Amino acid sequence: MKREKLIELIKSRESFLCVGLDPDLEKIPQHLLDREDPIFAFNAAVIDATRDYCVAYKPNLAFYESLGLSGWQSLMRTVEYIGDSHFTIADAKRGDIGNTSKKYAEAFFKNMAFDSVTIAPYMGHDSVKPFLEFEDKWVVLLALTSNPGADDFQLQRMENGYDKLYEKVIQTSSKWGNSGNMMYVIGATRPEYIREIRRMVPDHFFLVPGVGAQGGSLTEVAENGMNKDVGLLVNSSRSILYAGSGESFAEAAGKEAKRICTQMKAILQKKGVI
Amino acid sequence: MKREKLIELIKSRESFLCVGLDPDLEKIPQHLLDREDPIFAFNAAVIDATRDYCVAYKPNLAFYESLGLSGWQSLMRTVEYIGDSHFTIADAKRGDIGNTSKKYAEAFFKNMAFDSVTIAPYMGHDSVKPFLEFEDKWVVLLALTSNPGADDFQLQRMENGYDKLYEKVIQTSSKWGNSGNMMYVIGATRPEYIREIRRMVPDHFFLVPGVGAQGGSLTEVAENGMNKDVGLLVNSSRSILYAGSGESFAEAAGKEAKRICTQMKAILQKKGVI
Repeated sequence: MKREKLIELIKSRESFLCVGLDPDLEKIPQHLLDREDPIFAFNAAVIDATRDYCVAYKPNLAFYESLGLSGWQSLMRTVEYIGDSHFTIADAKRGDIGNTSKKYAEAFFKNMAFDSVTIAPYMGHDSVKPFLEFEDKWVVLLALTSNPGADDFQLQRMENGYDKLYEKVIQTSSKWGNSGNMMYVIGATRPEYIREIRRMVPDHFFLVPGVGAQGGSLTEVAENGMNKDVGLLVNSSRSILYAGSGESFAEAAGKEAKRICTQMKAILQKKGVI
Repeated sequence: MKREKLIELIKSRESFLCVGLDPDLEKIPQHLLDREDPIFAFNAAVIDATRDYCVAYKPNLAFYESLGLSGWQSLMRTVEYIGDSHFTIADAKRGDIGNTSKKYAEAFFKNMAFDSVTIAPYMGHDSVKPFLEFEDKWVVLLALTSNPGADDFQLQRMENGYDKLYEKVIQTSSKWGNSGNMMYVIGATRPEYIREIRRMVPDHFFLVPGVGAQGGSLTEVAENGMNKDVGLLVNSSRSILYAGSGESFAEAAGKEAKRICTQMKAILQKKGVI
């Protein structure tokens, strides 16, 4: 998907919500377990209920891989079901030497029709660039994540006494691609850094996990991270997927997505974007 | 697999060779393409031919994922075919927040019976620890990789003017596990660092890619990295898999594995390990 189309989607749908699809057999409603493909049945119902309130879907690969072959099949059916009305993110955190990254890129961009894939930066430029060679496809690079372990390396200072590792990652990697094929993962639990990062890369989109279950604030994220093209996709997974239980799970998911979308609309109006 | 069993395997087989299974439909012999599962047919023939000369197999996940469902199936069949006579490494470079890493661990340790999985350290302790909770399973953590991109971040200096990022990663992560459940990926193309790293973590095993196609030297790796329990698994992928072509590909692969194994035996004898 082209950057212009993504921005247009956000404006027309009055939302910058990304719904994380992390389906867990231990958490999905019991009545779905009798279905031929319970994971796909769950996802399809959530997608139907949230479609109008979000611009992106982000299946988390671990939840599919842990189910083996059937999980992989559910994932493929899910991506196809979403179609091209939404931006799709394979949350896979891949990254390897050049010839291997090329194979991963084929897995997500050719074998499945994802618009983007999350990538870990540790192995450097030749682990990222093969993904940038596909037209209208995106790298979503891990920069500053929302988990406690971000302190171990990402927030450690580099030699010049100023840059932390995540800043070095952003500074270096922003030269590999551009704002039309690269986004950054910036955790919502660290709003004090979002403003700083926005200054470093004024035009890039940020994928922001951590609002909801992990405690980040939507208002703070928007206040610090929004740019003239919005520049934000805010992800919510568990708080939408498991908003309800039993027969009415999809209705509850839709209601929660609508609630977030309404907040987002107010923010977009206040910022004069719509 | 327990550490003691791995060491015993190395001594009895007089080899510390790991064969990387990166099967590529564009490179495997044409006559296999008619088989019901060409990838598995290729792997099985390579495994049969190399079994006596190596102690570990390392399927590279990208090569299977890029083929979708059928690739995943070939992978599962391959792991099963290897059995428990060899140490198995899922070269997957995973790593995510806690609840997601737990799902990845289930994918590789429960759904498939891998002994270990390669992990990227960027997201810190809670992305790694869920893998360490499985008995007799291992984390193989990326430390210093063999690709050019290692210079971008891994070799950058940290604030105190001494530690490079990869050293920080090793120092910090060595406290998360122990030499019985954690190994490090250390590229063979950087022998000047191997001696230094061996000093930092005297007991840990290193998985060393980059010998062969990428140009690293086996003798230099052994000289700098071997410890009293050997402490090395040296990987070769392309130079074994594609040593020959046509009908005799497996024979050529076996011959190349035997050649490396003979070198390894001489090194082990010289070092007085066998």
